[in-house]
Amino acid sequence: MTDFSYPFAPARPDGRNPSAFETVGDLGHLIVDKVYEVPARQGRAIRVKRGQLLTITNTHGSQVADFWAFCDDDPGEHLSMEHMRPNLRKLCPAVGDELVTNRRRAILKLTTDSSDGVHDTLVASCDIFRYQELGHQKYHDNCTDNLRMALAAIDVVLRQVPCPFNLWMNTPARANGAMVWLPPVSRPGDHVTFRAEMDLTAVVSACPMDLLPINGEDAVPRSLSVVVSASE
Amino acid sequence: MTDFSYPFAPARPDGRNPSAFETVGDLGHLIVDKVYEVPARQGRAIRVKRGQLLTITNTHGSQVADFWAFCDDDPGEHLSMEHMRPNLRKLCPAVGDELVTNRRRAILKLTTDSSDGVHDTLVASCDIFRYQELGHQKYHDNCTDNLRMALAAIDVVLRQVPCPFNLWMNTPARANGAMVWLPPVSRPGDHVTFRAEMDLTAVVSACPMDLLPINGEDAVPRSLSVVVSASE
Repeated sequence: MTDFSYPFAPARPDGRNPSAFETVGDLGHLIVDKVYEVPARQGRAIRVKRGQLLTITNTHGSQVADFWAFCDDDPGEHLSMEHMRPNLRKLCPAVGDELVTNRRRAILKLTTDSSDGVHDTLVASCDIFRYQELGHQKYHDNCTDNLRMALAAIDVVLRQVPCPFNLWMNTPARANGAMVWLPPVSRPGDHVTFRAEMDLTAVVSACPMDLLPINGEDAVPRSLSVVVSASE
Repeated sequence: MTDFSYPFAPARPDGRNPSAFETVGDLGHLIVDKVYEVPARQGRAIRVKRGQLLTITNTHGSQVADFWAFCDDDPGEHLSMEHMRPNLRKLCPAVGDELVTNRRRAILKLTTDSSDGVHDTLVASCDIFRYQELGHQKYHDNCTDNLRMALAAIDVVLRQVPCPFNLWMNTPARANGAMVWLPPVSRPGDHVTFRAEMDLTAVVSACPMDLLPINGEDAVPRSLSVVVSASE
């Protein structure tokens, strides 16, 4: 089996899909209030200015969005799940919560969540190694590569692969610490809105996992949509 | 207040303590079966060959050890909590479990745990920003800087700051996702042993947190000890 990605390089994808060259808006600068699609199995980068709102919509209801945010004024600073959890003293943010970076600065505020708030902060983005473990041969689209390609497509070099905020991913930990892999409980049209607390670049990957039911019982990856709007 | 560490640089500490120049063994190469101390508030790097055992002892019983491991054959590969959790399908490893890297390769196996298995995989290492949040002025020893200094002291450049495996840290998540900060339940002499599944460099930081009771009700940081031994 191919020994992909040796040595590990944060920015280098192990394969390729249209995330490498298709962008939303003008290199990630979206027209305000215009709806853009993130196609199934792909990722897109989105520039968001401080005070703007970024809404991610689960168009079909069953699709997980791997989500990252990087500070525009500090290329080593990014939304960090392991810093956010102790800051909030909980596993997952809820409406009104601030999400912090690896310098513990607020980068986003969760302002709207039309779903039941079931999201994941515990699980790394899928990568070629994950699909190998699950028995897949050859290359498989994956969220880690989508992140790398989506940033490269707008000329941003990824310095590290942070743990994503996995919107609508339903992999809770039970009281004994055991985790379970379940389909999303979200519904078509469910959406979350973040307010940017600084200028940032977000990445949304429509997770291509089709070997486990995290994108619905039918395990069919589907598209998402994104909108940038002015602050309320 | 000083704007420490701007921009964020993985390898650059925000201050200094003896972790920057004191090492265990010969630049981290320990004499087999010899016990070495990791002083309170400091960190040390330890070279471990594949098949060797690394034992970390909670000498005083109340001390949290922030723990990292980096692959010697791939400077971008390291023990990764967010990859380990889905691999094990649980929050925290138990005896017999393999701990994996960000390439999902086994790097360590947990072979012994004399304590009740209460450890944390959810919380970033403390850093200068954490102590600022808690009201501390000026520099404070912290596990992130201990990691940076301990590796630099043996001439290894840190490429990223992974989420640590926090041995004996008792900050569980309740069923509703709320996390609580509690003193360790470990006892003096409790120890964990890992078998190295590849050549690696480990770092142990005796957490200097003295503003919260995670290092015991008295919030007094204490030393730990480490031993490398041959495989059983």
